[in-house]
Amino acid sequence: MNARRGRDPSAFVFAPLPAIEQLLERSTRVRGTPGALADAVRYSLIGGGKRLRPLLAWHCARAVGGSGRDAAPALIAVEYVHAFSLVHDDLPAIDNDDLRRGRPTLHIHAGEAMAILAGDAMLNKAFVVLARATLPPALVTLLMEELAGATSAMIAGQVYDTLGGLPDDLPTIRKLRVIHLNKTGALLRAACRMGALCAIGPKPRDKRLAAITRYADAIGLMFQVVDDLIDVQQSSEHTGKRTHKDADKGKLTYPGVLGIEASQGEIERLHLKATRAVRELGAPAEPLRILADLMATRTR
Amino acid sequence: MNARRGRDPSAFVFAPLPAIEQLLERSTRVRGTPGALADAVRYSLIGGGKRLRPLLAWHCARAVGGSGRDAAPALIAVEYVHAFSLVHDDLPAIDNDDLRRGRPTLHIHAGEAMAILAGDAMLNKAFVVLARATLPPALVTLLMEELAGATSAMIAGQVYDTLGGLPDDLPTIRKLRVIHLNKTGALLRAACRMGALCAIGPKPRDKRLAAITRYADAIGLMFQVVDDLIDVQQSSEHTGKRTHKDADKGKLTYPGVLGIEASQGEIERLHLKATRAVRELGAPAEPLRILADLMATRTR
Repeated sequence: MNARRGRDPSAFVFAPLPAIEQLLERSTRVRGTPGALADAVRYSLIGGGKRLRPLLAWHCARAVGGSGRDAAPALIAVEYVHAFSLVHDDLPAIDNDDLRRGRPTLHIHAGEAMAILAGDAMLNKAFVVLARATLPPALVTLLMEELAGATSAMIAGQVYDTLGGLPDDLPTIRKLRVIHLNKTGALLRAACRMGALCAIGPKPRDKRLAAITRYADAIGLMFQVVDDLIDVQQSSEHTGKRTHKDADKGKLTYPGVLGIEASQGEIERLHLKATRAVRELGAPAEPLRILADLMATRTR
Repeated sequence: MNARRGRDPSAFVFAPLPAIEQLLERSTRVRGTPGALADAVRYSLIGGGKRLRPLLAWHCARAVGGSGRDAAPALIAVEYVHAFSLVHDDLPAIDNDDLRRGRPTLHIHAGEAMAILAGDAMLNKAFVVLARATLPPALVTLLMEELAGATSAMIAGQVYDTLGGLPDDLPTIRKLRVIHLNKTGALLRAACRMGALCAIGPKPRDKRLAAITRYADAIGLMFQVVDDLIDVQQSSEHTGKRTHKDADKGKLTYPGVLGIEASQGEIERLHLKATRAVRELGAPAEPLRILADLMATRTR
């Protein structure tokens, strides 16, 4: 359709962004919500996010033969869970961050009580979206199980990362993997699988879903290794959030445990794994391969 | 079966408590959860609660012709949402309570970060329980919608109560009703309706469900009017939580707005309404009538 899209692969990958923004924007217009709560939710959800999870859900639906819009309930729900997790993780009692996407975090902007309640509302909203989706109930139930399972894992990862609790005799690199796979990997995995399920229907043993899952597992871990490197190598100005905070807080990171070079090697390995996983899905999976390329080389 | 049960009506109503405690206890045993997080969840969920919502779900299932155990997924899920709301509402940034059920609140016991994360985990767990219930998917979807809708309302009610935001020109008594119906009423309503749905199946227009809903709406509001009166009239020692805190915080209450006598009149009116609502369900609804009696006259 557009000649330029053919030349710049990333334009093709990001083409769904306006549609995704519109879906998210519409999801925030709900009658009966207190105005200040709706404002807090919009502040957290709209404007500024990379929309990685919605893009993954969209392109995973396409990669298995559906349309991107099939993934609408999945991508909205996953982005609400992501936004909830950022708001609560930023709270003074947890990561105590005051900057996010170049703006004050929600508790700085709207107060701590509102940040707690808006986070709760966003987590719950994810399930409202799925429960009210016009999809076969068996599919809704599967999507719910994916999302709730991933959210459990994400919270467990945050507990391990912030408060500890992993067995002392577990090798450091394995601790790190457990934290990363739970804290970031589980929701990225859910985004991919839920997007694919929306197109496939309630068939959890579908072969295409297995390929999507292998892809998701690889990019899920890769995402966090890259994040750790960005935290070490980039400035706050560049990323729009505080950097060097992992080291400041004594958190486990890939460059901290393996060194920068080995971390880069790990990224290459996972990148290759992701690309191979979706090869069998052919041309419709092209955006997923490009997304993996972009995720491997991102600097913010 | 037991002659004594026939004589003491409350014994009959509370007979399911051991089964309910066992269901809740079992639900907390999950592999892969960080130990400290599991401890925090158990601290909040096990031991001390009146189990009003689980009892309502149980007896509503029986009142519509099912068995109490039919309501198991509903009553577990609702009690997790209730426990989550107490933990987050008690946080320093919201109600700043240090006493709950005669024990230190979770953020006093386990720290604020853990209280935030354990609350999140409990809200999410409610949906895990429903998603994994061995029930027809159409029923699971209905239960999800009930629970997520009630949780939305509950959070909205807490925002109105703590942070304000209702239109200034709304009469005070109507403000109070909006706050109470959302903050407490919605989840009590969900407990009743979800319990009944578990026995009826995915038939949201069933007449018996309509009767249960009228009952639930009446006791939902009555519960909070009674709560307001207890806060005014009872001591902390008696209730196991701080009292007189509504007035201290300038919160709207029924006795504050209507006076004590009119509040008692409102309780009588709602009590009668609840009793009438389930009359058509006959003998199996007897425990619901007794529960309404007990809720109308409770002092803690």
